[in-house]
Order: sequence, then structure tokens, then C-alpha cells
Amino acid sequence: MSAAVTHPLVAELVERHRATLEAAVDAAAKRDYWSPYPEFPKAYGESAAADGKAAFESLLNRPFELPGHPADGDLVGGEASPYGVELGIGYPHAGPDALIAALSAARPAWAAAGPLTRAAVALEILARINARSHEFAHAVMHTTGQAHAMAFQAGGPHAQDRGLEAVAYAYAEQTRLPESAGWTKPQGKRDPLVMTKEFTVVPRGLALLIGCNTFPTWNGFPGLFASLATGNPVLVKPHPRAVLPLALTVRIAREVLAEAGFDPNVVCLAAEHEGGTVARTLAVRPEIKLIDYTGSTAFGDWLEENARQAEVYTEKAGVNSVVVDSTGDYKGMLNNLAFSLSLYSGQMCTTPQNLLIPRTGIDTDQGAKSYDEVVRDLAAAVEGLLSDDARATAVLGAVVNPGVLQRSAAAAGGEYGELALAPRAVEHAEFPGATVRTPALVKLDADKPDDRAVFRSECFGPVSFAVAVENTAAAVELLRDTVRTQGAMSAAAYTTSPEVEAALVEAALDSGVSLSLNLTGGVYANQTAAFSDLHGTGANPAANSAYCDGAFVANRFRTVEIRRHS
Amino acid sequence: MSAAVTHPLVAELVERHRATLEAAVDAAAKRDYWSPYPEFPKAYGESAAADGKAAFESLLNRPFELPGHPADGDLVGGEASPYGVELGIGYPHAGPDALIAALSAARPAWAAAGPLTRAAVALEILARINARSHEFAHAVMHTTGQAHAMAFQAGGPHAQDRGLEAVAYAYAEQTRLPESAGWTKPQGKRDPLVMTKEFTVVPRGLALLIGCNTFPTWNGFPGLFASLATGNPVLVKPHPRAVLPLALTVRIAREVLAEAGFDPNVVCLAAEHEGGTVARTLAVRPEIKLIDYTGSTAFGDWLEENARQAEVYTEKAGVNSVVVDSTGDYKGMLNNLAFSLSLYSGQMCTTPQNLLIPRTGIDTDQGAKSYDEVVRDLAAAVEGLLSDDARATAVLGAVVNPGVLQRSAAAAGGEYGELALAPRAVEHAEFPGATVRTPALVKLDADKPDDRAVFRSECFGPVSFAVAVENTAAAVELLRDTVRTQGAMSAAAYTTSPEVEAALVEAALDSGVSLSLNLTGGVYANQTAAFSDLHGTGANPAANSAYCDGAFVANRFRTVEIRRHS
Repeated sequence: MSAAVTHPLVAELVERHRATLEAAVDAAAKRDYWSPYPEFPKAYGESAAADGKAAFESLLNRPFELPGHPADGDLVGGEASPYGVELGIGYPHAGPDALIAALSAARPAWAAAGPLTRAAVALEILARINARSHEFAHAVMHTTGQAHAMAFQAGGPHAQDRGLEAVAYAYAEQTRLPESAGWTKPQGKRDPLVMTKEFTVVPRGLALLIGCNTFPTWNGFPGLFASLATGNPVLVKPHPRAVLPLALTVRIAREVLAEAGFDPNVVCLAAEHEGGTVARTLAVRPEIKLIDYTGSTAFGDWLEENARQAEVYTEKAGVNSVVVDSTGDYKGMLNNLAFSLSLYSGQMCTTPQNLLIPRTGIDTDQGAKSYDEVVRDLAAAVEGLLSDDARATAVLGAVVNPGVLQRSAAAAGGEYGELALAPRAVEHAEFPGATVRTPALVKLDADKPDDRAVFRSECFGPVSFAVAVENTAAAVELLRDTVRTQGAMSAAAYTTSPEVEAALVEAALDSGVSLSLNLTGGVYANQTAAFSDLHGTGANPAANSAYCDGAFVANRFRTVEIRRHS
Repeated sequence: MSAAVTHPLVAELVERHRATLEAAVDAAAKRDYWSPYPEFPKAYGESAAADGKAAFESLLNRPFELPGHPADGDLVGGEASPYGVELGIGYPHAGPDALIAALSAARPAWAAAGPLTRAAVALEILARINARSHEFAHAVMHTTGQAHAMAFQAGGPHAQDRGLEAVAYAYAEQTRLPESAGWTKPQGKRDPLVMTKEFTVVPRGLALLIGCNTFPTWNGFPGLFASLATGNPVLVKPHPRAVLPLALTVRIAREVLAEAGFDPNVVCLAAEHEGGTVARTLAVRPEIKLIDYTGSTAFGDWLEENARQAEVYTEKAGVNSVVVDSTGDYKGMLNNLAFSLSLYSGQMCTTPQNLLIPRTGIDTDQGAKSYDEVVRDLAAAVEGLLSDDARATAVLGAVVNPGVLQRSAAAAGGEYGELALAPRAVEHAEFPGATVRTPALVKLDADKPDDRAVFRSECFGPVSFAVAVENTAAAVELLRDTVRTQGAMSAAAYTTSPEVEAALVEAALDSGVSLSLNLTGGVYANQTAAFSDLHGTGANPAANSAYCDGAFVANRFRTVEIRRHS
């Protein structure tokens, strides 16, 4: 339908990526483990780690180049690494009118390119991002504060997995109807009615991605690639503290688009200074028909309320609970929970916040344990995990922003309640400017109104609450009620009782949260794997959508039919 | 998961309907002609017509029985047939609290029943409705004013097709993920991580169907069956003038539900007196999570704006255009258009309103025809089609409400512009009380501002406008602009020029309306066939959704995952 479709590179890309696309569609239906992007850093070659670091360093303290991108001459930026390094990168700035004009001009050819071409281009973008996973690791690390190993995996291949998953869903959804179908309706003795019907995917318009500080790629790629694969040019508005990973993404996307014969402005960057409000302006522009957002509940609610011209996909805040009823592997439980609370300093939307523990204690393979013993042993497990500073910083990463640091300090000062585990400042050997804190564990009582007010609010960061509850039944009801009223991105539980497990499953289904049961090994409640686990449910206040299901992609386009007699 | 699932009838229903369900899913993907419900009245047996008529008549002038349904003792109703007969049926009334309490009590077992059970129950409901198509024909005829033959087909098997299509889409969407999947992630030399993941469909909550006057079943069944099949109990709020077809539907659904071991209150009826406002009250109840609506733009917009707790699927008003550029079958075109304008007195949301004709005339197989000739010949074709009163009433049906009659009178009085064809009152042989009017055709000019104001508003009913335009290019642009600003449920065009056809297709894709090209035989622009044609696009202001696609069903449920180590 356009010159772009016949560009020689497009056919080559389709050939190159067809098998991966088909495997991804298949994997999303089967839900077994699958990924085309290796998660082990060494898989990328001998020199990849050094090359990636050098590539990252070459980006620092200079303007970020985006050839052909709208620009008014201003450079904006000011990212400072949570590890204490100023990035010193200036990104090209352009006003909303110029950005939207550029995206609008790029729209028709991209909208007409069709699902297979768009999927192939998207997979080429992902492949090039994948090849630069080491570079992305540093970019993610120094904007989010994630430890290097996590920044590599979660910011690299795991984020790419989520992007590919979105492309696979988008492709499958767009190809459910044939491009053309014959229709023959018998008319008794008369000649049948015969028609040809063509079904064409019509993208919605322009898409806006509003990125978050903590997982710019992992939480950004699903919406970005879902919109792109369904034919909607995407304006990427990164969090002002985490621009670089998405700016790199935009640059790579533009390179691939241009090589494939498309206007690179199919993907643009809306960088701004911290404290800017361009997201609010862009979100209500009539041209913006799709918005993907991860961040605070306040702004997410504002988007849902005000961006009425757009389909809005939000992931907001929640309060995640773990019900601790009983376990056949006490040590495994403690170690698993300790890691879950410590990973990235609890700065994940899926980190458990409230550990709901019967005040009468729990049964374990090591005998009955009182509430106090469980709390003390969990505190010890966290301390053990983080006793070595090098290992601690490799798990904790760095504190991403002053709000998180303030909550850690408040916990340390006893503001939330009695401390079972005090946070500790950890020195970072490589980055002395890094702000690193171990988790705080605070003892609260579900039956005390003041305590309830504390643990029923989100306390984002390395602060968790060991909440004493009347009994397991009360814990299950508290889980249900917390999910319903506060929302949750994850839930977990430990029990050896089939009856309790059934009650937990019922509460999870009823309140609409996914549940991890009895995790004692190398899988954690805060982690979900693309092609197998859904991230969020869209069934409770924490999010109105999930990565990734049919609903995440089905309304990013519409279908127009042209029919005529054959 | 519930006693209901093991009810013996459920297994029997699954067996009985599995092949039809699978064929429906297959047909929806292939888009060739397919239907399990015969559209020929005689297919239903020798005595079916008489039996259906008798069954209908036995409903008149008495209370409508809904055993076990919430009821406060009041009977409401007051339906009057457009054919001049008072129906005299009193429907049980219940207040919103009682209705919602009943639906809520019925919800858990239905939500837990699972996709296959629900599909089987839905198909049994449809099968019993189908067997009573002759009874439904009379119920639809005497509430909507459709002629008997149309009431039989559109109100019977064609509506059932749309209901089945929604069930097929809902079933396919709910079964895209396996109920349970194994997940094995290699860990190099260590043992792999092995988990079992269960994916459970979690319905949204309660659904509200707000029915319309003209197509209570055809426009009601998609939303009703989509919500039901995805596990959401449905409160059916019929239009006060078209209660009976949906009340029969509710009664049959309740019978099947009860027989299959479910609470019949999974489907309830919210009947009210004309002028009632219960829809407004129900639509913002927190328990109502899904709303399907067909009707005025004003109330549809109000729903979209105010029922923020629900997913809202609307079909509203639009302005449908036909571009007349040229034709290789002048007579076929005139006859096709004449029938399109006349069918059900133009009281379809898909009836062409604006015929856009170059003022310089068009090329045809019968030579060049001036604008005036085309208009005159079209008027003659309508007159010819409707010259015989019996044939006329069989095509026209009756005028559904005073608003339509008023617009016909306004056209007759020259209020809209110069008449090319005056409406004529037709006597109905069988029903002397019927109000029947032939279509009016009014000549307007696209370049006159007063005329533009007329044809750019919806003029629902038997009034069409022959709009003189500068040339075909102007007609295409007018089509595009009308769809974009006013919305449209259909578009059509006649042309022999590949260039014009390409421009028309581009305009249709760009503005988001489905297009019928060069219809000169037994297919009409105002008709769409389930399993093949999409009804509406959801891409222009006339509707935010379509019958039927993935987006129509994908967000009527969410998926919750439970995972544990194997």
C-alpha cells in the first residue's frame, strides 16, 4: 500500500524474524519458559561487557544525538545517577506542537504498512537493543539505581522479552481476520450471493508512552511495542530521572525505521527538565489516542479521568501482601522472603510490603514458631543475606530518589512502629557516592487502628511491615480487603494446609490478584517472566491492564471492512 | 469449582453444542457465509408459523411471568404496537437494589462455571430462542414496527447469529491461555526451576444491557451474550417500547440456567414505564462493570462520561453516506438504493441518508445521467418498489415512534428542502392502525450552508437527501468529513473508476467506516451478516465498538494466575 512496504530491507527483516515471531506467538499461548534473548551476560561475547561500558561512557557529558528529530535548539537533561555520578547528557527538546506534527506526518505510511511488516521492524529494533544489552545495563543502572546484574537482566533481556511479547500479541490480534475473504451465500434455486470482503487494520492514531523512574525499559517496552506493532507512532516521554534507556531505545528504533524506508519520526522523544509537566499537556492532545503509563496513583487516576480521547493503560501503586500460615521449609521461606524484600531495595511495584503473620505463631518443619520468632528469624535472614557489603550492594542497588530515602529514615526513626530490623547504610566499593540502605522491618498489629493506617498505605522502598494478625483466616481476609481497596501488583502466601490454600486461591480470584504459593527457591514473588506470567491483572486498583493479554492490544486498532461483489 | 459445574445437564449441553461452538469459532476466523439458524420461515416446520403466532397472542393482555424473579408487586408495561395494537402486557417490576442483590447472589457460581460451561448454556439459550423464532418474529414486529418477514429474519436467526458470534469470540478469548501450564527454566548445571501456573478467568462483575426500540434482539444479543459467556450476570433493561422480545429472551435464559443448576437470577429484567430513568440509576451503580448500549448519541455520551466504573460499549447515531460517481449497472444501482432507503422505513442505524451526487452528473451503462436525472430515476425506483400497497408494507413495516413520523411530515412539508419524492401514507391491509410512510427524497446542495446544516445532522427515518456536490472528489471528501465529525454505521459507493475506488477506500480507512462498493444485487449497504461482516467499526463517533471482534470481549474479564512449584 506504500513504497515502504516494498523496501528491500522490509522483506529481509520479515525473513530474518519470522521464526522468532511465530515462536513468540506460540510461547505466549503455551506459557512454558521461553526467551530468544539470553539473560547471561557472557552470552553476548567476550568483549561485550567492556564494549557496552565504553559505549555507555561515550554517551556521557555531551548532547544526545537524534538525527532528523524535531528540535528547537534547547538541550534538556540533568540526570544524576543514584550511584553519585552526573550523567551530563543533553537531550534535544521540542515543543508538543512540533513533536505531534512530526509523528502525524510519519503516521500514514506506518499505519498502512500492515501487521507483518510492523512486527518485523519491531523485532529488528528489539534485536539491535538486545545486541546492546550491556550498554543498556549501564544506562538502566545509572538512572534507576538497580544493581548492575539486575539492570542487565531486568533492563535488558527481560524487558526485551516483554516488548517481544507485546509484538506477538499485537500481531496475533491483527491477523485474526483474514486480509481478504470470499463470502458465498446460497439462495435456493437462484444464483448464490458472492462477495469479496477485505479487512484492514486501522491504527488508532498517535500513542504516548509515559515512562517511570525505576523500570524505564521493562515497564516501557510493553506499551511502546504494542502501540508500534499496531501501527501507532509513539511519543516516548521518559521520566526526567530515567531518560537515557528510553532515549537509546528511541534512537535505535529510528535507525531501523529509516533503514526500512519509514520516516524515523514514527518514534519520537519528549525529553524535558525534571519538574516539567509536558505529560499533562500531551496526554489530552486530540491526536493522542493511546497512553501507556507506569507511576503514581495520583497521576494515573488523573490520566484515566482526563485523557478521555485516548485508551489509557495504567500501572499505579498498590500494597502487596504475603500471608504466612505455615511452611514445610522454614529456612527456604525465610531466605526467599529476605531476598524478595531486599532485591533493588524494595523499589519494585511487586515487592511484598505487608507480611501477615498470625500472632499465635505458625507451624513449620522446625516446629512451631511464634510471631516474634518468625519476625526475628526473617530479620536475621535479611541480615545474613546482606552481611557482606559487596553482596549487599549487588542485591540492593541504590536508593532511587529522596522520597525512598526519607521513608527509610522514617522507619529507622521508629515513625512507623517498633523496628524488628533497622536499616543500615552500606558503602558501595565502586561508587562511593551511591546511597544504599538495607531494608527495615517494622512490627505492626492488625488490630491497632494506628498501625492499620500505616500498613494500608503504600510505603514504596526498603520498608516492610510484619503485621500480627488474629489468625490465618484474618490474614486471608486482610489480603482480600487490601487488594480490593488499595490494589496490589503481587500477592504471596506460605501454607501447608490444603484448606488454607483453597481459601487463599479463592481470595486471590475474588479480589483479582495473582498469587505465588510457597516460594522457597529461586523464584520470587516480585518477579514475573514474559510469555508465562502475567504482570498485574487489571482486576484491582493497582492497574487497569496486564502484561500481556488480548485486552492490552485489541483496542489499539480497529478493523475496517471493504466489500464488493466478486 | 461449584456444584453447578457437575450438574448432569451441563455435560449434556456441552456435548450437544460443542460442534456448533467450534464451527462458530472457525467461521468467525474464516468470514465466509455461515449460520446454524435457518433464515427461511418454513425451515421451522409445518405448524411453526401458526404455533408462533398463537404463542405470541397468548402473551397479550396479561402479566408476563418470570418465576423466581425479583418483584415488588407492581406490573409495568404499556407497549403499543406500531401496527396499532395495544400489547397489554404487564412485566414484573423490581427496584435497582433488589435487582442488583439478586444478580450479585447469582454471580459467584456463574463466575466460577468456566468458559466451556457458560458457552454451552449460552448456546442452549440461543437454540431455544431459535426454535421459537416465529414467536419472536411477532414480538419484534409489534414492538419495533418491522415488517413481518424482516422481524422474523433480523429479529430471529440473524440476531441469534450475532449472539452466537459473541459467544464464540468470548469462548475463544477466554481459552487463549491454558487453564494450567508447566514452566521449566534451565539453570545451567543446577536443577531447573519448575513451576505449575494456573490461569483463571475472572469476570468483571455485573453487566447492564440497555436495549433499543428498533432492534431489541439484533442489537441486544451481542452484548448480552458476550457478558454472559464471560461470566458476568446480565441485567436486561429493554427500551420501554420494545420490552417483549427481551423479556422472552430473559425468560428462556432463566429456564435454561435453572435447569443447568444455576440461579436463574444470572439474567434479570429491569422493566419500567416509558419515561422512566432507571437506566441512568443502574448505569452508575458500583456493581455494574459492563454496559452495552444502543441508542441516542446524547445518552451514549452520557454513559461514556459518567459510568466510569464500567467498561461501556456504545452504538450511537451517525450519518451514512453513499457516493454516486458512476456505474456499469444503472438499473441495478437504482433498485439497490431504492430498497436500502425503503427497508424498514429507513429506521436502521445503517440506512443511507446522504446520496452524494456530482452536480455535473454521472456516467452509466445507459449513458451520462444528469444530477436531476439520477434523482428522478431513483425516486421512480422507490415509487416502483412501493407502488403496490401490500408489497410496500412488507418492505416498509410501520413507523416506530412519533419522532420519525414528525420528520416524515417535515420532509413532506418541504422543511428540509425541495422534494424529489414526497412521502406517501400507505394503508396496511391487515393492521389498519399501522402508521406507514414511504421514503421522502429531498434535493440539497453541498455548497449551500443551510443545506449543509440539514444533511450533516442525523435525520433518522424515511428521509434521505440527494446532495449535489461539485464533483466526485468533493463527494469523497464530504464522506470522509461526515464520518469523522458525525460518525457513520455504514458507507457505500458506486464507481467504475479504479482511481475513484482507490480514493474511496482510502477515505473509508482514514475516517474509519466500512464501505460497500457497487451493490447492485441482493446485498444492501444497511445489512451486515454475522461471522463475516463487522457491524460498525468503533473507529468513528457513531460507535466505540463493533460486532464482533476481540476488543468487544477481551476486557469483559481479567485473568488471575496462581503459581507454585511443581
